[in-house]
Amino acid sequence: VERKLRMGMVGDAPIHRMATALDGKIELACGAFSSDPSRSLEVGRELFLPADRVYGTFGEMLASEAALPPGERMDFVTIAAPTDVHFPAAMGAVERGFPVVCERPLTTDLTDAKALAAVVKRSGVLFALAHRDSGYSMVKQARAMVREHELGPIRRVVVEFPDGWMSTLLETAPHKQEAWLTDPSRAGAGRGSALSGIGTDALHLAEYVTRLRVEQVSAETPLYPGRQLLDDASVLLRLNAGAHGILWASEACVGDETGLAIRVCGRNGSLAWCQRDPGSLRVIRAHRPAQDFRAGAAYLSESALKHTRVPAGPPEGAIEALANLYASFATALRTKLAVGSVVKPDFLTVDEGVRGLAFVEAVVKNSRGDVKWTRMS
Amino acid sequence: VERKLRMGMVGDAPIHRMATALDGKIELACGAFSSDPSRSLEVGRELFLPADRVYGTFGEMLASEAALPPGERMDFVTIAAPTDVHFPAAMGAVERGFPVVCERPLTTDLTDAKALAAVVKRSGVLFALAHRDSGYSMVKQARAMVREHELGPIRRVVVEFPDGWMSTLLETAPHKQEAWLTDPSRAGAGRGSALSGIGTDALHLAEYVTRLRVEQVSAETPLYPGRQLLDDASVLLRLNAGAHGILWASEACVGDETGLAIRVCGRNGSLAWCQRDPGSLRVIRAHRPAQDFRAGAAYLSESALKHTRVPAGPPEGAIEALANLYASFATALRTKLAVGSVVKPDFLTVDEGVRGLAFVEAVVKNSRGDVKWTRMS
Amino acid sequence: VERKLRMGMVGDAPIHRMATALDGKIELACGAFSSDPSRSLEVGRELFLPADRVYGTFGEMLASEAALPPGERMDFVTIAAPTDVHFPAAMGAVERGFPVVCERPLTTDLTDAKALAAVVKRSGVLFALAHRDSGYSMVKQARAMVREHELGPIRRVVVEFPDGWMSTLLETAPHKQEAWLTDPSRAGAGRGSALSGIGTDALHLAEYVTRLRVEQVSAETPLYPGRQLLDDASVLLRLNAGAHGILWASEACVGDETGLAIRVCGRNGSLAWCQRDPGSLRVIRAHRPAQDFRAGAAYLSESALKHTRVPAGPPEGAIEALANLYASFATALRTKLAVGSVVKPDFLTVDEGVRGLAFVEAVVKNSRGDVKWTRMS
Amino acid sequence: VERKLRMGMVGDAPIHRMATALDGKIELACGAFSSDPSRSLEVGRELFLPADRVYGTFGEMLASEAALPPGERMDFVTIAAPTDVHFPAAMGAVERGFPVVCERPLTTDLTDAKALAAVVKRSGVLFALAHRDSGYSMVKQARAMVREHELGPIRRVVVEFPDGWMSTLLETAPHKQEAWLTDPSRAGAGRGSALSGIGTDALHLAEYVTRLRVEQVSAETPLYPGRQLLDDASVLLRLNAGAHGILWASEACVGDETGLAIRVCGRNGSLAWCQRDPGSLRVIRAHRPAQDFRAGAAYLSESALKHTRVPAGPPEGAIEALANLYASFATALRTKLAVGSVVKPDFLTVDEGVRGLAFVEAVVKNSRGDVKWTRMS
Repeated sequence: VERKLRMGMVGDAPIHRMATALDGKIELACGAFSSDPSRSLEVGRELFLPADRVYGTFGEMLASEAALPPGERMDFVTIAAPTDVHFPAAMGAVERGFPVVCERPLTTDLTDAKALAAVVKRSGVLFALAHRDSGYSMVKQARAMVREHELGPIRRVVVEFPDGWMSTLLETAPHKQEAWLTDPSRAGAGRGSALSGIGTDALHLAEYVTRLRVEQVSAETPLYPGRQLLDDASVLLRLNAGAHGILWASEACVGDETGLAIRVCGRNGSLAWCQRDPGSLRVIRAHRPAQDFRAGAAYLSESALKHTRVPAGPPEGAIEALANLYASFATALRTKLAVGSVVKPDFLTVDEGVRGLAFVEAVVKNSRGDVKWTRMS
Repeated sequence: VERKLRMGMVGDAPIHRMATALDGKIELACGAFSSDPSRSLEVGRELFLPADRVYGTFGEMLASEAALPPGERMDFVTIAAPTDVHFPAAMGAVERGFPVVCERPLTTDLTDAKALAAVVKRSGVLFALAHRDSGYSMVKQARAMVREHELGPIRRVVVEFPDGWMSTLLETAPHKQEAWLTDPSRAGAGRGSALSGIGTDALHLAEYVTRLRVEQVSAETPLYPGRQLLDDASVLLRLNAGAHGILWASEACVGDETGLAIRVCGRNGSLAWCQRDPGSLRVIRAHRPAQDFRAGAAYLSESALKHTRVPAGPPEGAIEALANLYASFATALRTKLAVGSVVKPDFLTVDEGVRGLAFVEAVVKNSRGDVKWTRMS
Repeated sequence: VERKLRMGMVGDAPIHRMATALDGKIELACGAFSSDPSRSLEVGRELFLPADRVYGTFGEMLASEAALPPGERMDFVTIAAPTDVHFPAAMGAVERGFPVVCERPLTTDLTDAKALAAVVKRSGVLFALAHRDSGYSMVKQARAMVREHELGPIRRVVVEFPDGWMSTLLETAPHKQEAWLTDPSRAGAGRGSALSGIGTDALHLAEYVTRLRVEQVSAETPLYPGRQLLDDASVLLRLNAGAHGILWASEACVGDETGLAIRVCGRNGSLAWCQRDPGSLRVIRAHRPAQDFRAGAAYLSESALKHTRVPAGPPEGAIEALANLYASFATALRTKLAVGSVVKPDFLTVDEGVRGLAFVEAVVKNSRGDVKWTRMS
Repeated sequence: VERKLRMGMVGDAPIHRMATALDGKIELACGAFSSDPSRSLEVGRELFLPADRVYGTFGEMLASEAALPPGERMDFVTIAAPTDVHFPAAMGAVERGFPVVCERPLTTDLTDAKALAAVVKRSGVLFALAHRDSGYSMVKQARAMVREHELGPIRRVVVEFPDGWMSTLLETAPHKQEAWLTDPSRAGAGRGSALSGIGTDALHLAEYVTRLRVEQVSAETPLYPGRQLLDDASVLLRLNAGAHGILWASEACVGDETGLAIRVCGRNGSLAWCQRDPGSLRVIRAHRPAQDFRAGAAYLSESALKHTRVPAGPPEGAIEALANLYASFATALRTKLAVGSVVKPDFLTVDEGVRGLAFVEAVVKNSRGDVKWTRMS
């Protein structure tokens, strides 16, 4: 289509709006920004949206947009609301044929996730899981190097996500807008942010980079005094192809800030990346000095270079990473609109969303029992 | 105005387009993207602009836009073309009353710069110098801490900008689009990128953070074999209030990448910032452990917090820094449109543009003579 | 005693000789440097030792030295030979009343370790486990801050020891001198360097800093193709006082170099230290900028300052850390020689040596079974 | 000689004692540790020296030791006393034929330095300038890489030595032992620690690594209120072979700690080293990822590997660097005792000592005048 793609938004997620605006290929067309209709209208006004494209509920939005002529209605919907909204909003969108970008975790439990995936597959709509971290250009470089066997067979992966955002009690603290995160009935029964949020971020990053699958987990999920949700998850991993690993995520690490980091070790080499310095990838080959690969440099893989906006040097960050996901999604969507089908896209899909929930369930089950290993269903 | 501000663009500068799109408060309305009209049209088409708002020359754009009714024509113009275009384009815009955001260096020589500044002042239009680095939130934190006397009287500033982008001969290398940078007749007689480009970036950063003014310079500007422009500038600085410093910039540092960094030392404390890790500010008070201030943290100054988009943790980068400049510019412009005047804005103006050229001239003059110190005129 | 203390050495360990020589309070008096008597003599000659104080076996050394008059014979013995030598040499020394500094692991199995500990206690001789890492001044700072409750109750500890020293096959590679490390019959049945060596280093560091005790472990110890010993150990930890943690050690991390690192998180703050930059300790209190504590700075604890040799600034390293252990040992020994008893010394003892073996046994047992948690006996 | 070399010491310098003790090839034989004889005796007692080898003055020591038989008297003397003592002590030692290791700066002025150098040359005794930094193994690696033309022709060197040790007024502060450093009559007229101390350290490091010579300087040496000595020196450098550079040193950088760092840029590559992380050398070749060379790694040059004591990984520091100087000195001395002459030794000599004073004089002269460049005499 010779115009910007039109996005509808469920929830109020500035980082998604910034990421979609960045490249000038997507425009915000409509939104149901809040479960409070007057708040939704206020957000719409701040965004200079026409009032008739601002809705009080996602149901209203889906119905009204579907009724608009094809050249006017939204081309896809981004769902970035509290987790309990994901399932009904995504189901509604998919059933009406709207492509979806959905925040993680996909749903509040595995049953819903599988049901949603089944519908997505049957309908054939494009569906992306909004996993920002796989959008960083140097994460793509890491993935490309694994594919090219530059590390040899993978032996070991350590992925960690220390965070201190909730290290003081959210329940009594000022993050009002995020209160739902600590309410198990809204964020997902039996699972808290350290597991279903940043824990699945870590899982997806590990699988995206190594191209392996976690098969079994052995876990500990401590609950600290006064907390309702699991703050920490420490997980031993068995992956396919004989690889092993550790994954841990914690919201109780005072002073840490979204410290997502991954280290992958193969027989012939290792690599390390962390979100705090996202434009660097440390690569080591045996008996050689460690190398510092830098975003935008001409020696990078095609997939890494394609996802850089600024000529080598000036730093890029999280918004650009998410924008890379949207760029891939937009390309796939345009292709589909043009030719009707899409080859394997470079973003996570509803399948990874299901894997995330399966991981959460396996970890929770394992950590409550006495059996050493639990298989991801 | 209850709508997005409309930007016109002279030149083809994706980073400016991304920075302006980020916050959803500015939209690209028109452009003269190239001195080649067909290329300009092609860019406009890729950006989904209507063909009648894409122009073959900046002169055509200024004339045509000025002829549109106020509610339709562009609200301001961004000039991000080769340096020799800055002066005529900016003069034309200002004379027609269009506010301007202009890339650095302001003009190719000091005479033009002063002439432009005089016209800007007479006309009263808003004019911003596009100095991205002063837009980083932690640079604003540094400036705020100096204002609050947290370092005591400033003794010393060291600012450096090592870069390797041109460390191989651009004249014979593949950066075709930037060929004008190495042509003295287009980039400015007697001055090359290491001085008028990243050298003035360093000057502006030093003055922005310390709130001091460079008064005298003593400099060396080596010319390496086979080069047409000055690759390096090493400058001793005397600032007001008894402060001293060093500024150096180099395009010949193999392997460095826009390594802009500043260290400021006062009687009671020091601070350090570098572009490679822009979300950190290292602060040291005498006899205390060094502190690592982080972007987005609640303990920061108001000015630093106001310029952060992502909750503490995920990294922001150069695009966000430039977007901060545009956010300040847009706020000032809306205020001016509403109430007719603006209080001291938080961006560099045509005055700093003139200072940049004065610095370039003083450094070139000093480095060619035998006198120790040269005063900035 | 108004003279240097005299050390005897079993094995050929230059780093122990350097560490003891550093402070001028200990001198090498004699040694059984090799199981090959002619090699032992050669080492003795290079060290300018008189030939009659160089022995062919540790048994000969213990017997001969014990026969010398008190003012002449060695004051203590350092055992830094292959692990299978530790038990007989240490038993022999203790039985003759010689104080001992013994490399880790204490013995090849837990039974021997307990037997040795019983004899040490009965005899009352001073006995130090040569755990170098607890000798770093900033590790002592970390321990002091935990004691002063600066982090609040400890929630979580992550300790890791990635190493690539054996990432290529030692069995076929040129590290001849260390061949015994990969021979289970000499290094300890069922345990390899990644567990009994650097794994116990990590255990001791975690317990030394946190002042907690590991009570239960859940572990995975992969065996990679072609290897005889365990290269990796990944261990979930339950410590006393409700703390949790992760410990991992690996000799198969291509390109890593003794990357020992620890992070401790309490309710009110966190700290982090790594061996690669041993003079720094990162300390974070909630809602405050992270602090970089530096070795030798006046704001440090008494225990940290006491173990620094160079005025603040120039780096110290591993030799100085081990020298700190010897300095504490020498002080304790002089006190004991003077007044007959010693208060709690600042070095690890035979008890920690036993704990190390208990940890190894628990990890090996757990990793071979299907039960989730194994208690350290 | 089949024994340890015997060192005499003028002054009380623990770091020199530790560095010489480290390798077991040198022993402290005698000393004049203080200008206060009772303090000298006390130091000698703490070091377990026989009372008849502890002297009240260096003159007494030189005379008495010279009178001892060759097999008993000291083999060389280390001079590590206040700067005004260097000249008479070194002259006395050289005249009696004692080899010398002398702290920097060599003397308090250039005239003395030249006089001393003349006598050293005439006498033919071994003479080392105690420049610790050229002893770091990775500095030797840097020098080796320049020799092998790995960077191509050198264009640019930036060497800096920020330090905050004296950032509060030493004159009124507790560093009593170092009071002489701020007394111009003892530390050298017209020059303070930031120039003759760490400033010459920086000069020597730059010349040692690049194998170039500074030929001309242009400098600024600010004097801050209330200070007697120059705290800062900022110097533009012209070196031979068309290279340029910047050198700066400051004792007034609050919070910095012996932050010696060097960056060298050639046509084909760059390298960077800093004392804070002495075991790393960052090397960049054009269009290739930066490499992190690590101390002790098998891929290093012979000269770097020869000066490492600990197998790759555990950090080494400043004491080991100084020990490397002594190891080279001891090897040269043994060779000379054996065969009568020495080939080019790997340590700085009296010639570099003279260069240091020539640099100090040129910088002071230049900074007080209006002429741009001053040639080093």
